Amino acid sequence: MATTAVVGALAVAQKLADRTGLVTDLPGLSGVVLPDFEDLVFGGHDIDPTPLPHRAELLADAGVVPTALVRMLAADLAGVDRRIRRVPPLPAGRQLEYAARISHDLREFRDREGCDRVVVVNVASTEPPLASSPAHADLAALETALRGDSPVLSLSSLYAYAAFRAGCSFVDFTPGAGARIPALGDLAEANGLPWAGSDGKTGETLVKSVLAPMFALRNLRVRSWAGTNLLGGGDGATLADERAAANKIASKGRLLGETLGYEVDAPLHIDYVPDLGDFKTAWDHISFEGFLGLRMSLQFTWHGCDSALAAPLVLDLARLLAQAHAAGRSGPQTPLGFFFKDPVGTDEHRLGAQYESLVAWATSLESGA
Amino acid sequence: MATTAVVGALAVAQKLADRTGLVTDLPGLSGVVLPDFEDLVFGGHDIDPTPLPHRAELLADAGVVPTALVRMLAADLAGVDRRIRRVPPLPAGRQLEYAARISHDLREFRDREGCDRVVVVNVASTEPPLASSPAHADLAALETALRGDSPVLSLSSLYAYAAFRAGCSFVDFTPGAGARIPALGDLAEANGLPWAGSDGKTGETLVKSVLAPMFALRNLRVRSWAGTNLLGGGDGATLADERAAANKIASKGRLLGETLGYEVDAPLHIDYVPDLGDFKTAWDHISFEGFLGLRMSLQFTWHGCDSALAAPLVLDLARLLAQAHAAGRSGPQTPLGFFFKDPVGTDEHRLGAQYESLVAWATSLESGA
Amino acid sequence: MATTAVVGALAVAQKLADRTGLVTDLPGLSGVVLPDFEDLVFGGHDIDPTPLPHRAELLADAGVVPTALVRMLAADLAGVDRRIRRVPPLPAGRQLEYAARISHDLREFRDREGCDRVVVVNVASTEPPLASSPAHADLAALETALRGDSPVLSLSSLYAYAAFRAGCSFVDFTPGAGARIPALGDLAEANGLPWAGSDGKTGETLVKSVLAPMFALRNLRVRSWAGTNLLGGGDGATLADERAAANKIASKGRLLGETLGYEVDAPLHIDYVPDLGDFKTAWDHISFEGFLGLRMSLQFTWHGCDSALAAPLVLDLARLLAQAHAAGRSGPQTPLGFFFKDPVGTDEHRLGAQYESLVAWATSLESGA
Amino acid sequence: MATTAVVGALAVAQKLADRTGLVTDLPGLSGVVLPDFEDLVFGGHDIDPTPLPHRAELLADAGVVPTALVRMLAADLAGVDRRIRRVPPLPAGRQLEYAARISHDLREFRDREGCDRVVVVNVASTEPPLASSPAHADLAALETALRGDSPVLSLSSLYAYAAFRAGCSFVDFTPGAGARIPALGDLAEANGLPWAGSDGKTGETLVKSVLAPMFALRNLRVRSWAGTNLLGGGDGATLADERAAANKIASKGRLLGETLGYEVDAPLHIDYVPDLGDFKTAWDHISFEGFLGLRMSLQFTWHGCDSALAAPLVLDLARLLAQAHAAGRSGPQTPLGFFFKDPVGTDEHRLGAQYESLVAWATSLESGA
Repeated sequence: MATTAVVGALAVAQKLADRTGLVTDLPGLSGVVLPDFEDLVFGGHDIDPTPLPHRAELLADAGVVPTALVRMLAADLAGVDRRIRRVPPLPAGRQLEYAARISHDLREFRDREGCDRVVVVNVASTEPPLASSPAHADLAALETALRGDSPVLSLSSLYAYAAFRAGCSFVDFTPGAGARIPALGDLAEANGLPWAGSDGKTGETLVKSVLAPMFALRNLRVRSWAGTNLLGGGDGATLADERAAANKIASKGRLLGETLGYEVDAPLHIDYVPDLGDFKTAWDHISFEGFLGLRMSLQFTWHGCDSALAAPLVLDLARLLAQAHAAGRSGPQTPLGFFFKDPVGTDEHRLGAQYESLVAWATSLESGA
Repeated sequence: MATTAVVGALAVAQKLADRTGLVTDLPGLSGVVLPDFEDLVFGGHDIDPTPLPHRAELLADAGVVPTALVRMLAADLAGVDRRIRRVPPLPAGRQLEYAARISHDLREFRDREGCDRVVVVNVASTEPPLASSPAHADLAALETALRGDSPVLSLSSLYAYAAFRAGCSFVDFTPGAGARIPALGDLAEANGLPWAGSDGKTGETLVKSVLAPMFALRNLRVRSWAGTNLLGGGDGATLADERAAANKIASKGRLLGETLGYEVDAPLHIDYVPDLGDFKTAWDHISFEGFLGLRMSLQFTWHGCDSALAAPLVLDLARLLAQAHAAGRSGPQTPLGFFFKDPVGTDEHRLGAQYESLVAWATSLESGA
Repeated sequence: MATTAVVGALAVAQKLADRTGLVTDLPGLSGVVLPDFEDLVFGGHDIDPTPLPHRAELLADAGVVPTALVRMLAADLAGVDRRIRRVPPLPAGRQLEYAARISHDLREFRDREGCDRVVVVNVASTEPPLASSPAHADLAALETALRGDSPVLSLSSLYAYAAFRAGCSFVDFTPGAGARIPALGDLAEANGLPWAGSDGKTGETLVKSVLAPMFALRNLRVRSWAGTNLLGGGDGATLADERAAANKIASKGRLLGETLGYEVDAPLHIDYVPDLGDFKTAWDHISFEGFLGLRMSLQFTWHGCDSALAAPLVLDLARLLAQAHAAGRSGPQTPLGFFFKDPVGTDEHRLGAQYESLVAWATSLESGA
Repeated sequence: MATTAVVGALAVAQKLADRTGLVTDLPGLSGVVLPDFEDLVFGGHDIDPTPLPHRAELLADAGVVPTALVRMLAADLAGVDRRIRRVPPLPAGRQLEYAARISHDLREFRDREGCDRVVVVNVASTEPPLASSPAHADLAALETALRGDSPVLSLSSLYAYAAFRAGCSFVDFTPGAGARIPALGDLAEANGLPWAGSDGKTGETLVKSVLAPMFALRNLRVRSWAGTNLLGGGDGATLADERAAANKIASKGRLLGETLGYEVDAPLHIDYVPDLGDFKTAWDHISFEGFLGLRMSLQFTWHGCDSALAAPLVLDLARLLAQAHAAGRSGPQTPLGFFFKDPVGTDEHRLGAQYESLVAWATSLESGA
C-alpha cells in the first residue's frame, strides 16, 4: 500500500493520473490549503529489502497500478528508494535505544530534505495485541520501563513515541495501540503535535458505516450481521495468525454496537486465501426485522483492492495532518475519524456525519482558527 | 400495504406490537407532538371488494403479519372495513363529476367521524404516465378541461384535486403525477394545504440512497450500476405492464445522477415473479473505479417485503402531514423527501442529509414555528 | 429433523402432502418395490423431553411445516410420541450395559409393533471426534473394552453396535464414526445387516457436488473455494463448539480433492447465528482459472432449511435400507453415497454419477438380484 | 473470441501455455486421436479490418490474454492475419452469388494451405431471427430462392450452405439458424459432411446445466428462476438490440423446461454494460420448494470472460469435427451437445450425461467405428 501511495503521489504531482479516490479533492475540501503534491517528499523504514521500483513492477503485474505509469516513474521511484532505510525487527529489550535510532532517522531525514514538517504514517501489518502496563500511564514511568528487558510497547507505539520525540506528527493506519497510550498522548500534547488513528476504513467496514445508519434511520432492527473476509496478499498472511487477527476483528467490531445502540450477534471471519493476491472479497449477511416483527435480509459482496483504496487516504491524511501541525493543533484529531475503522476519541461511525465533521475541521485549519 | 398499515396502527394503538419500522419513533423525532395512534381513524376508497379482515388473513397466511394479531384485531378490522367504500374504475370523460364525488366522500367521512383533519394517501398501484397538457398550468383551465371528454388527469392527480377541494392534505406514496401539477400546487397553496411525495423509498432505492453517497464521499467513481428487481404480488403484476413500469423506473432513476453529479450507465429491470408473493428480491451490481484507475465492484441482494417496509412510513407520513396541516403549513413539504424515491422540490437523495432536514422541519412544527 | 420426517411420513401416508423432496418418488426409482408409507412405524430414543406434538407445533410456528398439517395430525403424533423413549446421556463407563439396553428397546419395539424389520437412523447432533483405539479392530476386543471404564465408542457407534446386535440395519445421517469401525463392520456382515452413511448431503455440499464436476468437465482449474455457513437452531449451537465442528468440517472437506483430483485452498467456516432459527445460509466463493491463465469467479448463496431438506432423505434411506435388508444385502451399501457428504466405501461425490449408481442398486434389489 | 482461440492454439502448439480449459485434454478424451495443434491452420472471413496482431494486443490490454504471449507470437499472428479475408456485409439479394464466393474462398484456402479438411466455425455476433420459408424444405427450392431478391437465409445459414458446397464441415457457435434448416441438413448428408451446433455453452447456462439436474435429482420443485446477464464488449452491444437478443434468449431458454420436465417462470435479461469490457457478470435467483411445501432459494453470481471460456471449446470442436469428418460421419453430431446451449437433435442438457455421450462418441471415432 505504501508503494501504491508513492506511485500515486508521484503520478498526481506530475499530472500523469487524476485524483480519483482522494478525499481532499472533493468539492467540500477543495478550498482547504494543503501541501502540494509537488512538495511532498517520501522516505521510510521497511523490513522488506525489495527495492521500491521492483515492488511497483510487481504491483503492475498484479493489475493494481498501470504498467505504463511504473515505467514512466522509474527514476523517481529509484529516488524515493534511496530515502528508504531497511530496518531490522525490534530486538527483545533495548526499546529505548531502538526508539532513539528511529527519532534520529526522522530528524536527519527532515534536515537533509529540508522539510518543514514530517508526518509518520504506520502502514505495517497488523500486530498482535500487547497487554496494557502500569508504565503506560505516565511518560517518566514509560521511559524507565523502555530501558528494561520486557517489551512495554508494541512496534506501532514505539514509532509513535519516536515520532513525537522527533517533533513529527503521527498517523496509525493499522489496528493496534499506536499513539493510544496515555503517556504518548501526553507527550504529543506537550510537544504540540497532532496525531490520528486508527485502522484505515477501506472496505467492508466502509460499507457498514453507511448501511448500519440506514437501518437505524428507518428504525429497522438488525438481528444479526455476519461477515466473512477473504484476503490474499501480505495482509492476509499476517491475519491468518489468530493473534494478529484479534486486533483487527476488535477494531472492526466497534461500529455496529456504537451506531445502532444495541448489541448485535455479529460473527466476523478473516480468511487467508493466497490466490486472491492483492484483492479482498468480503461477504456480509444482515438479517433485520421490520414492522410487526417481519424478517428480511440484505447481503453484499465487496470485491476491492485494499492498497488501492487505502493509498489515497494515506496521502489525504499526511497532507491534512501536516496542515494541522502547521496550524498549531495538537493531540488526537477526532474529526479525522472519517478515515478510520476505530476512530480515536469518538463513537461516531456514520460516514455522512464523519464527513461533515471533517469538513468543518479542515475548513477551520485553513482560516487558522 | 394499506391493510398492513391498518393492522399495524391498530396493533400499536392497543400496545399489541412495538414500533419497529416507525421513523417517528426514533429518538430524534420522539419529542415532536403528533396525533396519537389511538386517535387515528381509517377509511378509504378501494377497487378491490375483498373485505379488510379477509385481506388481513391472507397477509397472515403469507407471513407478512402475525396470525395471532389478525385474530385479536378481527372486530376492529371489520369496523375499519365499514368505512371503506368500493369505487368503480375511473370512467372515460366526466372527470370533474368523479372528483366531486370523491370530495363529497372525504367531507362526509370527516364530519361523520368527527376528525379534525383528513390526510389522503395514495397507495394505489403504479399508473402509466399521462402526457402533460396546457390545462395543467392553471386551475380554471384545468377545471374546464375536466368537464370535457378527454382524460386530463391520471387517477392519482384526480384524487389530489379532490382532496384539496375537500380541505384535506395529500401524500402520493406511488410514482406518477399526483399533486405535481402546477394547477394542483396552486390549489393546495390557496387552500392552505400541505402535501408530500412521491413514491415511497422502501427497498433497493433506500440502499442506493446510502451507497451512492458512500462512493461520492470517498471520491470513488461509479462506472455502472445495474439493478434487477424481482417482484411478486399485485405490484409485480402491475409493473409487468411496461407502460406502468416506465413511471416506476423513471422515479427510481433520478437518484444516481443527482447524488453523484455525473451520469452513470444504470440499466434497471423490474420482473414480475408471482412465486415471490409479497416479497421482493433486488440485486444490484456496481462497478467502480478507485485510485489510478483500478476497477472494483460491489453487489448486494435485498430481500424484503414492500408492504411491511412501506406501511409504517405511510403511518409516519399521515401523522406528520396532519401535524403540518395543524401548524398551518401549505404546499409541497420538501423535508419529507426522506420518505421518497422521487422527492418533490429537491435533488437531495442522501438519506443522512434527508433525515437531518426532516428532524429540523418536524421540530419546527412542534414549536409552531 | 426427526419431527419433520415423522410429520411428513404421516402426511404422505394419509395423502395430506405430496412427495416433493422424496428421491424415491423420482421416475428412475418409482418402479422399485419399497415399504409403503402406510406400513412405517416410528419410535425412537430422545434426550429431549419435549413431546412430539409440541415439537411439531414449534416447527409450524417457525414456518418449517404447515400449521394446518400439524393440527390434522395431532392424534397420530401423540401416538408416535408414546413410542419414543427418553434416554439419559451416556454414562462414563458401563458402555456395554448401555448398549444392551438399547438393543433390548429395539427388540421390544419390533416385537410389540409387529415390524418385519427395524432401521435405526442416527439423527443426533454432531459429536466430537473420538480417538481410534486398538479395540476397534476386532469384535471380541471391542466388547472387552466396552466393559471397562474408558469410553471406547462414541454414541453414534454405540447405537450402531446395539442396532447390529438387535438385528437392525443402521443409517448414520450425521458425521462421526457410526458404523465405520472395523469391528462393527464385521458384526454387520456376520449378522447379515446392511448399513449406510454418513452425514446427509443437504445444502452447501449438495451444490458443491454438482459445481465441482462442472469445473472438472470443462477443464477449468479451481484455485480456491471458500465457504461460510451461518446456522441457527440446535445444530448451530452444537457446531459452535469447535470440537464438534471439527467432525463436520472434515466430513464436508473430502469432496473437492476427491472430485477435482488436486488439493484446493478451501477455508470453511460454520457460524452459529441463533437468529436464523431453523434456516441455514451458506455463501461460497470459488476462484477459478481458464484458458491462458485467465481468472474468473463464481459465488453462490444457499438459503435452506436443513430439517426440511434432510427429512425426506431420512425417509428414503429408511425405506431403501429396509428393502436392502429384505433382499439379503449386508455391509456398507456404497450406492447410497448419493445421500451423503462423506460416503462410505467410495470417493465418488459427483451427484449425477451417484444417482446412476443408486438407481442400478435399487433396481437390482427389486429383482432380488 | 476468434482472436483468443488463435492466440491460444499457437501458444499450445509452441508449448507456451498449458491446456487448461480444453475439454479434449481431459483424461476421458485424451486417448482419442485428433489433429495436433501443430497441424492446425487458421484463416477466416472478418468484417472488422483491425489486423489480428493488434486485436491480440487489445485483448492483452484488457487482461484477457497475457501480454508476454502476444509479444512472443507476434510473427505467427501476422501470418494468420494474411490468411484472413475482409468481407463486405451481405448485400440485399444476390445471396447465391455471395455464397459461391465464400465456397470459392474455402476451396482456395484448402488447396493453398494443403489442408486435408476444413472446419468452418461461425463465431459472428448473434443475428436476429429470420422467418422460416417454404424454400427451406428442399435444396432445389432453396437455391432457386437464393437467386431471387428477398433474403432467404440469414448469414449463418448462408455460410453453412457455402461450407457444405465446398466440402467443409460446419460448427455454429452462435445462436440462430445456421445449418438447422432441412435443405442444409440434406446437403450435408448428401456430401458426407458432419456439423454441430448451436450457441456455445460458456457461462450462466453452463451453471444451469448442472444446477437444474441437482434440483431434479433431489425432487425439489423449482418455482422460479430469474436471470440477469450484464455484458460488455461487442457481444453486449449486439445483444442490446432486442431483435438479436430474442435469438439468444430463446437459445438459453430451452434448458429448464427440458431438464425439469415442467415449465418454470424464468424471466431472463441481457443488459449491455460497456464498462464491463470483455467480462460478463450474471446473477441467477432460483426459488424452490422442498418437503411439505417449504420455500427456499439459491442465488449465484458468475463473473467470467466469454471469449476465454469459449475459445478452447472452439478449438475442441474444430479438432473433434475434423476427426469426425475423417471418420466418415455426416449430418448433425448430437453427442457434441456438451458444448452448446441449444444442442441440435436432443433435449439432453445435463452436463454429466452430455459428457458421457461425448466420450462414447469420440472414442468410437478413434476406433473408426
